[in-house]
Amino acid sequence: MEIKIREAVRTDSEEIIRLILELAKFEKLTPPDEAGQKHLLDDAFSDSPPFKILVAEQYGGLLGYAFYLFTYSSFEAKKTLYLEDIFISESHRNKGIGKLFLDKIMKIAKANDCGRMEWAVLDWNVNAIKFYEKLGARELKEWKYFRMEL
Amino acid sequence: MEIKIREAVRTDSEEIIRLILELAKFEKLTPPDEAGQKHLLDDAFSDSPPFKILVAEQYGGLLGYAFYLFTYSSFEAKKTLYLEDIFISESHRNKGIGKLFLDKIMKIAKANDCGRMEWAVLDWNVNAIKFYEKLGARELKEWKYFRMEL
Repeated sequence: MEIKIREAVRTDSEEIIRLILELAKFEKLTPPDEAGQKHLLDDAFSDSPPFKILVAEQYGGLLGYAFYLFTYSSFEAKKTLYLEDIFISESHRNKGIGKLFLDKIMKIAKANDCGRMEWAVLDWNVNAIKFYEKLGARELKEWKYFRMEL
Repeated sequence: MEIKIREAVRTDSEEIIRLILELAKFEKLTPPDEAGQKHLLDDAFSDSPPFKILVAEQYGGLLGYAFYLFTYSSFEAKKTLYLEDIFISESHRNKGIGKLFLDKIMKIAKANDCGRMEWAVLDWNVNAIKFYEKLGARELKEWKYFRMEL
């Protein structure tokens, strides 16, 4: 059965949280706690969601998800599509699902007149890095990224 | 006369473009061309601007500007304030204007219930890097940033 990339709906909530927890474990990062999960879903399915969700579906189950939103480049004077998360469940890797997501996301970026797509990847995630480079993305080595916790 | 940080208005357009061109020269990057400048200002002062502009004003002239927008952290389940540009005109550095901007931006981030602020800096811009570290920001060394041009 074909793998379908589609926009997420409220009824995907439980599956999306399952995948986010799986991603956090994979990235060795702290996942949202129960209050955070509720907040995340309320934001995602609100009237003006701060990000959008795509999911990969097969046989009624979700195999992966992607979160994206739009930033802006002042020098390009164009929007940038920023990919906050992209994740394929471990047992469904190497089936081309990542490519399906990226193709779909690239189409969305072009339809929204974006000049670029950007995202971050953990430095030890060499499989993902190889995949991104093969797609024609390049690492922004000349920039340092800073964060301030509030 | 006191330096005032305030939201930009349409009549700041010419000064904002002057500052953006100065930033591009400083960063050795390609600035927006005339069509890009028009597009940028139309976006900035549209009904739903994709980014917001703050300016530093003294004696009716602009000394610097900052562009910001909101992204989202899925693991935090909170918005992040992303600082796209922050620039102080060369002749007005070391007067505390950067600190005025960051204080104002931090207030905006907190008022919008953001968990974090994030931004990028060119690796040779050691003065800016020292300034950010002194403010308590940290470099995200474990992440690589990728870009795909569309």
